[in-house]
Amino acid sequence: MKDLIATSLKYQQGQLWVLDQHQLPDNERWLECASVEAMVDMIRKLQIRGAPLIGIGASLLLALLAERGAGKAALEQAAARLRQARPTAVNLMNCMDRMLQALQSGGPAALGDCAQRLFDEDIALCLNMARNGAALIPQSARILTHCNTGSLATAGVGTAIGVIAEAHRQGKGIEVYVDETRPLLQGGRLTCWEMRRLQVPYTLICDSMAAMLMAQGKIDCILVGSDRIAANGDFANKVGTYSLAVNARYHQLPFYVVAPYTTVDPHCPDGSQIPIEQRAATEVQGVSGSFGDVRWSPEDAPVYNPAFDVTPAELVTGWILDNAVLSPQQVRDGALGRL
Amino acid sequence: MKDLIATSLKYQQGQLWVLDQHQLPDNERWLECASVEAMVDMIRKLQIRGAPLIGIGASLLLALLAERGAGKAALEQAAARLRQARPTAVNLMNCMDRMLQALQSGGPAALGDCAQRLFDEDIALCLNMARNGAALIPQSARILTHCNTGSLATAGVGTAIGVIAEAHRQGKGIEVYVDETRPLLQGGRLTCWEMRRLQVPYTLICDSMAAMLMAQGKIDCILVGSDRIAANGDFANKVGTYSLAVNARYHQLPFYVVAPYTTVDPHCPDGSQIPIEQRAATEVQGVSGSFGDVRWSPEDAPVYNPAFDVTPAELVTGWILDNAVLSPQQVRDGALGRL
Repeated sequence: MKDLIATSLKYQQGQLWVLDQHQLPDNERWLECASVEAMVDMIRKLQIRGAPLIGIGASLLLALLAERGAGKAALEQAAARLRQARPTAVNLMNCMDRMLQALQSGGPAALGDCAQRLFDEDIALCLNMARNGAALIPQSARILTHCNTGSLATAGVGTAIGVIAEAHRQGKGIEVYVDETRPLLQGGRLTCWEMRRLQVPYTLICDSMAAMLMAQGKIDCILVGSDRIAANGDFANKVGTYSLAVNARYHQLPFYVVAPYTTVDPHCPDGSQIPIEQRAATEVQGVSGSFGDVRWSPEDAPVYNPAFDVTPAELVTGWILDNAVLSPQQVRDGALGRL
Repeated sequence: MKDLIATSLKYQQGQLWVLDQHQLPDNERWLECASVEAMVDMIRKLQIRGAPLIGIGASLLLALLAERGAGKAALEQAAARLRQARPTAVNLMNCMDRMLQALQSGGPAALGDCAQRLFDEDIALCLNMARNGAALIPQSARILTHCNTGSLATAGVGTAIGVIAEAHRQGKGIEVYVDETRPLLQGGRLTCWEMRRLQVPYTLICDSMAAMLMAQGKIDCILVGSDRIAANGDFANKVGTYSLAVNARYHQLPFYVVAPYTTVDPHCPDGSQIPIEQRAATEVQGVSGSFGDVRWSPEDAPVYNPAFDVTPAELVTGWILDNAVLSPQQVRDGALGRL
């Protein structure tokens, strides 16, 4: 397999490397990944994250295992274990399905090509979303975004951040409000890092401050990514997305979800059918990362910690996909089921 | 002056002590306070906090300075400096006005009695709010609250938490969702500590999770405190309150603000006239406290960090005061201006 280089994932001279997202923004440290155990662990710890990226990462790992001599049965087992690493993001499942089809039809030798196609396709999907989305962004727009949806979450320029990067590249003079995205701080850590790299002017806020900015007229639109879009347009994304959607509606602001077709799950009828991963209480009792570990709540504080929430289709202004921007009417007419 | 003992403030044998709220929930450490500089510093660092409590604390300090021989001019200067320590909370200004009136009419010797009256009055106001509010809480209610509004924020049982404590005491079988209240974590640190002490069942969440709980039907009402209520019913409270109010409206849930009449500013026509304190970027770039100091964002990340936001009257179901529960119609008819 030829070398494949993305911002946070690379396949180079027969080795797979993952940029450790725990270490950002302060350190850029690459971790080698050579086993299913290592990949599942990195996914669970969010060292590799982002719905599209974990699908590509898991696919590259399968290709690597095939290249190193794993047989069909072992590869099937590996794919089955990888697909369970995160229950909410559907891209991982879609990628594993594509890899298993390649394995059935072409044997282990077919996995390298398939993984490479998925990698290249993700880059192309990002560019298409970025162009589709940038066309909707007004000159001098002030954009609010949530979590991290950029080159750390995909093989390409990203989903929501891809749109931001493209609007900036087109000279639209945009500004971005980055919410920190508690509990795991993907906004404060990772999106800030991406905005700096892209040289997009940005301001970091706490999640609870977004509504106030909307009331003050300081936000023109909201762009978020997704981990799974149901056939009716409901979608799961990082917890906190739903609150922004409700606030966007109250303040009559456009609220867009940006995702490739690989995030759409036509077999999932609506948001109530999307499984939501629950995570450890310690994530809410304090914070933990390469920057340090602190706990501020009582040690025995009972916690509710869903990793995602579901935003109903009726709060979405547009679904910015790689091949279309769908309106609420198109989604109500079943366009997502026909992708 | 006789000894006065509250959960987080005490005047004992001629000395004034403040429970250091930086150290909670892990350590209960009392700090002696004997100068204006020390009190202003403690207020700015939120070692003493809560709109009612800082007013009482500043009043007790003036009484102490008078007891130790400060003259009228020095006491007037001290009051002027104390009233500027926090711009948003009106209770501090109200308390300083009352103390200055006592000083004009009775000289320094009158300050002890006045401070004691303010202290005792705050306890009584809390009990009245608690009874007025508890009457509105249904059996088995699941209550969401924000920031800290209990015995750490007042001389008595608190405002919103006072209502929670009274509903619990009345055997209503309530449960409480505590949002952590970024950036300074008064929910995660202080309200959790108070719920444990009161033995009220509670669950800690991140601020951005409240909307999801509302959508799931897990919240029956929202109770918050206030730092200043304008004559038209708009009110300032800890940042994040407004987002909860918008979400409460969208989910058709009752949203109550709980405050004593000392929080009402009849001279302030509406929320746009309430000054909002802006705080340091470092508070949003990471967290800092007795539990440790960490920074997770890029060191130069630009930040917007308002300490409070304003919730318009139209989102409030009821104003739970010490002497009344006002409806939106009563507030529209000018009831707050006639208190």
